[in-house]
Amino acid sequence: MVGQHFVRFLEGHPWFKLTWVGASDRSAGKKYAEATAWRLEGEMPESAAALTVFDSKPGNAPQLVFSAMDASVATDIERAFAQAGHIVVSNSRNHRMEPDVPLIVPEINPDHLALVPAQRCKRKWAGAIVTNPNCSTVTLTMALAPLAQFGIQRIFAATLQAVSGAGYPGVASMDVLANVIPFIGSEEEKMEVETQKILGTVHNDHVLPLEAAVSAQCHRVAVVDGHTVATSVQLYHKPELREIQTAIEDFRGLPQQRELPSAPQRPVIYMAQADRPQPRRDAARENGMSVFVGRLRPCPVFDWKFVACGHNTIRGAAGAAVLNAELMVAEGLVR
Amino acid sequence: MVGQHFVRFLEGHPWFKLTWVGASDRSAGKKYAEATAWRLEGEMPESAAALTVFDSKPGNAPQLVFSAMDASVATDIERAFAQAGHIVVSNSRNHRMEPDVPLIVPEINPDHLALVPAQRCKRKWAGAIVTNPNCSTVTLTMALAPLAQFGIQRIFAATLQAVSGAGYPGVASMDVLANVIPFIGSEEEKMEVETQKILGTVHNDHVLPLEAAVSAQCHRVAVVDGHTVATSVQLYHKPELREIQTAIEDFRGLPQQRELPSAPQRPVIYMAQADRPQPRRDAARENGMSVFVGRLRPCPVFDWKFVACGHNTIRGAAGAAVLNAELMVAEGLVR
Amino acid sequence: MVGQHFVRFLEGHPWFKLTWVGASDRSAGKKYAEATAWRLEGEMPESAAALTVFDSKPGNAPQLVFSAMDASVATDIERAFAQAGHIVVSNSRNHRMEPDVPLIVPEINPDHLALVPAQRCKRKWAGAIVTNPNCSTVTLTMALAPLAQFGIQRIFAATLQAVSGAGYPGVASMDVLANVIPFIGSEEEKMEVETQKILGTVHNDHVLPLEAAVSAQCHRVAVVDGHTVATSVQLYHKPELREIQTAIEDFRGLPQQRELPSAPQRPVIYMAQADRPQPRRDAARENGMSVFVGRLRPCPVFDWKFVACGHNTIRGAAGAAVLNAELMVAEGLVR
Amino acid sequence: MVGQHFVRFLEGHPWFKLTWVGASDRSAGKKYAEATAWRLEGEMPESAAALTVFDSKPGNAPQLVFSAMDASVATDIERAFAQAGHIVVSNSRNHRMEPDVPLIVPEINPDHLALVPAQRCKRKWAGAIVTNPNCSTVTLTMALAPLAQFGIQRIFAATLQAVSGAGYPGVASMDVLANVIPFIGSEEEKMEVETQKILGTVHNDHVLPLEAAVSAQCHRVAVVDGHTVATSVQLYHKPELREIQTAIEDFRGLPQQRELPSAPQRPVIYMAQADRPQPRRDAARENGMSVFVGRLRPCPVFDWKFVACGHNTIRGAAGAAVLNAELMVAEGLVR
Repeated sequence: MVGQHFVRFLEGHPWFKLTWVGASDRSAGKKYAEATAWRLEGEMPESAAALTVFDSKPGNAPQLVFSAMDASVATDIERAFAQAGHIVVSNSRNHRMEPDVPLIVPEINPDHLALVPAQRCKRKWAGAIVTNPNCSTVTLTMALAPLAQFGIQRIFAATLQAVSGAGYPGVASMDVLANVIPFIGSEEEKMEVETQKILGTVHNDHVLPLEAAVSAQCHRVAVVDGHTVATSVQLYHKPELREIQTAIEDFRGLPQQRELPSAPQRPVIYMAQADRPQPRRDAARENGMSVFVGRLRPCPVFDWKFVACGHNTIRGAAGAAVLNAELMVAEGLVR
Repeated sequence: MVGQHFVRFLEGHPWFKLTWVGASDRSAGKKYAEATAWRLEGEMPESAAALTVFDSKPGNAPQLVFSAMDASVATDIERAFAQAGHIVVSNSRNHRMEPDVPLIVPEINPDHLALVPAQRCKRKWAGAIVTNPNCSTVTLTMALAPLAQFGIQRIFAATLQAVSGAGYPGVASMDVLANVIPFIGSEEEKMEVETQKILGTVHNDHVLPLEAAVSAQCHRVAVVDGHTVATSVQLYHKPELREIQTAIEDFRGLPQQRELPSAPQRPVIYMAQADRPQPRRDAARENGMSVFVGRLRPCPVFDWKFVACGHNTIRGAAGAAVLNAELMVAEGLVR
Repeated sequence: MVGQHFVRFLEGHPWFKLTWVGASDRSAGKKYAEATAWRLEGEMPESAAALTVFDSKPGNAPQLVFSAMDASVATDIERAFAQAGHIVVSNSRNHRMEPDVPLIVPEINPDHLALVPAQRCKRKWAGAIVTNPNCSTVTLTMALAPLAQFGIQRIFAATLQAVSGAGYPGVASMDVLANVIPFIGSEEEKMEVETQKILGTVHNDHVLPLEAAVSAQCHRVAVVDGHTVATSVQLYHKPELREIQTAIEDFRGLPQQRELPSAPQRPVIYMAQADRPQPRRDAARENGMSVFVGRLRPCPVFDWKFVACGHNTIRGAAGAAVLNAELMVAEGLVR
Repeated sequence: MVGQHFVRFLEGHPWFKLTWVGASDRSAGKKYAEATAWRLEGEMPESAAALTVFDSKPGNAPQLVFSAMDASVATDIERAFAQAGHIVVSNSRNHRMEPDVPLIVPEINPDHLALVPAQRCKRKWAGAIVTNPNCSTVTLTMALAPLAQFGIQRIFAATLQAVSGAGYPGVASMDVLANVIPFIGSEEEKMEVETQKILGTVHNDHVLPLEAAVSAQCHRVAVVDGHTVATSVQLYHKPELREIQTAIEDFRGLPQQRELPSAPQRPVIYMAQADRPQPRRDAARENGMSVFVGRLRPCPVFDWKFVACGHNTIRGAAGAAVLNAELMVAEGLVR
């Protein structure tokens, strides 16, 4: 599924052109249109449909490859590509928490790309692996990024996650229709440690994670696209409501400065309406690349609580990886 | 809608018989079957269908009356009934937070009925008003009750609430289908203060609220019945996992001791499965009168986090009020 | 899934006691509780949980066996049991359309059990196979049964089917959430030919199907339980509205006469409300064993159109098979 | 709601510019942004937000006005505008079936605009009223239009309609969540007579309706946007499957010839996949202005059955009216 999102997201991209598709050897040799059933809206882009699928081996692949591989196989395959000189921009979770692998949200921690030389050196790779976070972590960290200046001390995050986050066939309709599933395997752990790494600091050849306690509670709900994250945050400095709103509205990152093709004009958008953001009405706006924040109000336990919402398959997966690749081009890491 | 839930819940009740229905003068004089369109499963109970609807005035009403009135009119009407000698067992929010009005969850704070004499004395009422909490508060407080022995210090609660909690027509399908609405008017405030009052202590003629900070975040989701509450709790004493499970499994209250007709055998039921409780699969079990708790696990910020789920229109409304009335009968407050 | 529905439906049955469970050899030897994850409301009945699962071979199975096997394996296994002397009451589609296998809806065609002796004779079986129809066919034929006296000439049936009809995991939530899937594999063909067989006549050792054209259009919708069938029917005799209503209300079959344990008092229930029947509000009434009909109105193309609704996993699967078995006991075919 | 769809659909329109908004006198004088809560995705277009709302009287309105008025008030107001010289392009049902009012689907019956002079003459109006059909009728007639050449004799249509068709708040979530509502007030009658009028022939000053029997069965399902219509059709001439597919693929109308701004390139799009079209995946493609047809297969009762799907608030409402207006401009009826 994430692969299909890559195909769609890359269609008409000004810098990148999809020329090579890899899959298991079971699909190798087929046309992409034959190898996969298109699950997204509309029809499969014709340029992708006509591509021949290759076995997932470095061989004739281009320098820059996006990985949407299942976690059960990603470790070895991604390493093989990196060793063979490819820049692997991965959405898989396998390498995210390795000390020398950058886990990047381009608006937040583009400086973590500084891990790449150490990674190459240590692993003797001609290429590299760079990762983007889990889909719910992206939404949370983007919403927190404007608050980092106030010193983030403790975080509560309860999610209401869309079914598209589970791939295809993913969540059985018998489980989620008119229901809530209060469990998503290893999702809470990912949100907790990935958030600390993203908001952390590069120190020599690794990242010192942010020393902030993070508690995540994850739920699957009957939503198609868009993760909602109810958040409470304790801050060292105590900003006023208006300071936080201003911080959100003024927040810009390197992708905006460099005008990267997939960068949203405003990475985090504050909504003043009482009942927004909402996944069905907001997540897909701005090409699905912004995160929406609303309901900013005092928290009786911490300092402030708010609701964040982002598009899990775009900003939380394919779009995140493509923006990572654009950042690496802009930084000269991909020719 | 809550009125219809009362009608259904009281059908075949061993102690109470529905003999009188009050509504606005617009409906007065009609048969109940003509005055209202039945929105619940199945068909309207025949005994209720044949009742004549009266204007909501004390007049010929029986001593015990249940109130499911809209908040816009409940204040004056409930007071008029109480003054005229009726025991008003109310599901409306209007009087819940008044100092001399008991806000009761019978398993937790039956001793708060001690406010009744003071209420009568102060207001010079022959009758009385007794209330039950908001539907999401019931689920939260029932799940917290077994932990009270460990000293509750701070609470985080993020809800995923069913549409039936909003009455009829309530939530527009355009708003909630494949969506999350991250706002329910004044629900968070209710959860915060009602929880403190229910877990508080009677002191002379009023309640000293529990001195625990409570932060609630409320969301409407596409669920028909059953509220889910993701909860984190900080406790003064630090129990082990097994101690909490035992506390939940052993928890019983006065309704269980007195074997009140609507009392569930186990008020709080612990579920060990990784992905339970779930509103569609669990909320209606045990006649909708138990609260289900699962996913008990350490919280990186507080001490423990868990998921609670309860039936909002039964344990959270009609069933709550009927159990309150049964308690009052058992305590000799209703003859 | 249908197996789980059997387990639940048989719990506390006055005639039958679940003593034996068969599955693939992969599960053989495990306890039922270990061999399967319970997907239904509440918890697995304890009596079933403790049963040891056997390999699906006749061996030590009791005389009467219910089959909920997947179509990919049912043919051979059901035959092996029948040959070994078992009465196989099957919900699988494999044998339904064989000429000597009864396809029974007990209220409609109990006389089709007359095929059993011929089946035994021809196949040299000590036992027998008896089947119930597809879940959408049951709803349609039950609704048509009271009209059979007017001579059914042509039928249009458009279905809106619940996801539980597809088993587990069945329909992906990505496919059906806020969507309609206008295709259910081979369902239309089944509805067309099964309806003709059920409403047909036994002639010697086979069934002469009803000579009525049937056109079915099947859709999956975001409903948990309960199939809705929009039906138009052309009749040889031209009854008045009131005659049809009376025919529905008066309709009773052999299960009602014999007072079989699972027989609903009224097999087909007419609802006069403008917007009923509805799957979520009606299908589970009467223990899920009745079919509900409403919106009877003239059809500009045929004679009458109406909406039928029935519970697909109860009346359309487990309950249908159990009622078949009860009928066979009452008819002396099972000792 | 339809008004909001007009606002969105007209944003950036090459020919029309929204300059005037009318509403009840309760809203008159307010800014549009204050007079209405925006219910659609994203935020209200700024150009509309700044408009002042006028009382719905001809006065200072422009020549061309779109009407999305509630049926309870549309009759008199639309007539007043037409009498005062305005071209009223109406989505309301009030005047659709009047003999001298064109009911237009521009690809099908643009020649019905010939009623306009007669309407003006008879009613002594300087302006005129032109209407588009009900949302489900548009989908059905667009799908039937390519088959008209084969002689349409009889039609069965069972709908699965989105909740957005009912406006706001429209369908209560308590009614439609995990449910089907088998009734939409007067919808079946509208589909039956509007279809006959649209496919009919202008004769002097009125339309001779198509002499084809039409039977509609309408259902509301838990879909946000997009009506699905399961259709069976009997044809005088008996085309082969391939002839029908070709007729659909080749079908073009006046809007395509004139290259009207809102005309889709292909008004009816045939989908070969087994399980398409689907409302959530297809209705919004092609700017929501095409109708999608699939599952073309023989019908055991009539000749052919198929599934049609169209966007009810775009092609079935706002987009339909705007295309009507574009047609009138192209035909010289609006200057």
